[in-house]
Amino acid sequence: MPEASNIQGGRRGITAAAVPALVERAREGDPRSVGRLVSLVEDESALLPELMRALAPYAGHAHVIGLTGSPGVGKSTSTNALIGELRRRGRRVAVLAVDPSSPFSGGALLGDRIRMGDHVLDPGVFIRSMAARGHLGGLAWTTPQALRVLDGAGFDVVLVETVGVGQSEVEVAGQADTTIVLLAPGMGDGIQAAKAGILEIGDLYVVNKSDRDGADKVRRDLRSMLGLAERREGAWSPPVLKTTASTGDGVADVVDAIDEHAAWLAASGELERRRVRRARDEIETLALTALRKRWGSVGSGDRLDELAAAVVAGEVDPHTAAAELTVS
Amino acid sequence: MPEASNIQGGRRGITAAAVPALVERAREGDPRSVGRLVSLVEDESALLPELMRALAPYAGHAHVIGLTGSPGVGKSTSTNALIGELRRRGRRVAVLAVDPSSPFSGGALLGDRIRMGDHVLDPGVFIRSMAARGHLGGLAWTTPQALRVLDGAGFDVVLVETVGVGQSEVEVAGQADTTIVLLAPGMGDGIQAAKAGILEIGDLYVVNKSDRDGADKVRRDLRSMLGLAERREGAWSPPVLKTTASTGDGVADVVDAIDEHAAWLAASGELERRRVRRARDEIETLALTALRKRWGSVGSGDRLDELAAAVVAGEVDPHTAAAELTVS
Repeated sequence: MPEASNIQGGRRGITAAAVPALVERAREGDPRSVGRLVSLVEDESALLPELMRALAPYAGHAHVIGLTGSPGVGKSTSTNALIGELRRRGRRVAVLAVDPSSPFSGGALLGDRIRMGDHVLDPGVFIRSMAARGHLGGLAWTTPQALRVLDGAGFDVVLVETVGVGQSEVEVAGQADTTIVLLAPGMGDGIQAAKAGILEIGDLYVVNKSDRDGADKVRRDLRSMLGLAERREGAWSPPVLKTTASTGDGVADVVDAIDEHAAWLAASGELERRRVRRARDEIETLALTALRKRWGSVGSGDRLDELAAAVVAGEVDPHTAAAELTVS
Repeated sequence: MPEASNIQGGRRGITAAAVPALVERAREGDPRSVGRLVSLVEDESALLPELMRALAPYAGHAHVIGLTGSPGVGKSTSTNALIGELRRRGRRVAVLAVDPSSPFSGGALLGDRIRMGDHVLDPGVFIRSMAARGHLGGLAWTTPQALRVLDGAGFDVVLVETVGVGQSEVEVAGQADTTIVLLAPGMGDGIQAAKAGILEIGDLYVVNKSDRDGADKVRRDLRSMLGLAERREGAWSPPVLKTTASTGDGVADVVDAIDEHAAWLAASGELERRRVRRARDEIETLALTALRKRWGSVGSGDRLDELAAAVVAGEVDPHTAAAELTVS
């Protein structure tokens, strides 16, 4: 295997007939094939229906972990440390770093190479940055399908890390089985957490840089805030852990907690519920995108433009026009 | 006519059969009827299709003016001054104040009474605040339909004023025939304007509080920034005017400029283009909302849930599921 072969971004032409073979090679562990499949998603390729059909039988193997937190809490270092611990336990790991603010992905490769850290030569690790502002609706559209690729490629764990704040974090959390919220002392994180609604999205809270002053206070504050939330009988109670990702301290505890959460998800039926909800959102987004294209396309005689002109002329009202559109 | 009868927020029960009569009374100038029709929109009433059908023949009479600007530039004072000038010219005026940040509209009445200023007893003026965060998608869903009500009720001018900043301003501008961007000296407005993308949305720029230091500089800066934009042959070149809304200085010039812009819109074909584009968006939003409801409703056996479960089980891929949804 050539050096650093698990990093790539090539987008050579692929035909529909080649898709199933590419999926098979990805499942056999060929990182170039995985990368080419992710590129199809990122490029909003016309082959996506073909690709998704080929992946469908392999759905649901990977445990998807969302990692979120404000800039400066140590997300990249934590990701690197988590990869190391997961690899020690023999699991194949894919990392998807989503940058919702960037329309470009070209600059991602160098960043990936740096982020890979110790894992640049490990064929059991695949890392990919993905821009998420395509034509068809961004994050909500591309992320679920990229996760399908990595899941279908047979990775045991997929880590989704979001670069960015606010709404995009909540969106990424919505795609994960287990969401880890990362904090650090000295950043006013208690207030940040409350403001960003982060108290509602975490399954695990990790205070990183725990060798620094104030780490214990952040944990205490967080625990008391989390303690105020009402939880149903049998609900998951999010633990608050501490790490020093740069030395690896506490990282094994985080992976233990992830595994505990995964076991709870399966036993409680919540895993199935979360995945059905996600599939619902995904299908709906794909359907609405397809409909908007169909309504607005020249090939259809642009029915929407005709209806709009009729509404402007007062010949029809917008509700009747909308009803016509949805039955045609 | 009772005092302040053109302010109301009552939501007594209305039947489908009563809608056409209510529309007729609104067209005869009864402000209570207008208010009740706007409430139907705000409440996302099941009677909206009925209402929109009754309004359709009267569409397209009103000139819709969007008024936008940062907090503190004097939007309410300017609205009040514009109403005065428009009334002097004999026009019926409706004002729709959209607050995209508020899920409530209950507090709007007192505010309206204050905002009415000189016009509280004038039956030719209708003012209404509207919350825009309903269940069905907020601003984009409710504003166009509220504008249809005010247009259909026979007002000559509808002023849409947005309380709020950023995206919501751009959304409101998208609903107007003529968008006025209001600025004031001493607020770093040049930079604000550039950041908010406001340079692209204005048909008219008005520097208010022009009796203050720095007003001329704001106008100069704005003119040079606007001068940098490339415009097609025959395109509208947005004027930069100055007012002191509190004294009324310059307000007549603004109304003259609105009328010039209205004449240009009609002569150039841009009015038709803007209205068709808006009707397109409106129909599409209504259609997508109806489809989402249909897909997710219990009455349909919740087809979307069934498909989502099949996707999670690996029996079908999300693209195929989406395609099934859009043909059924």
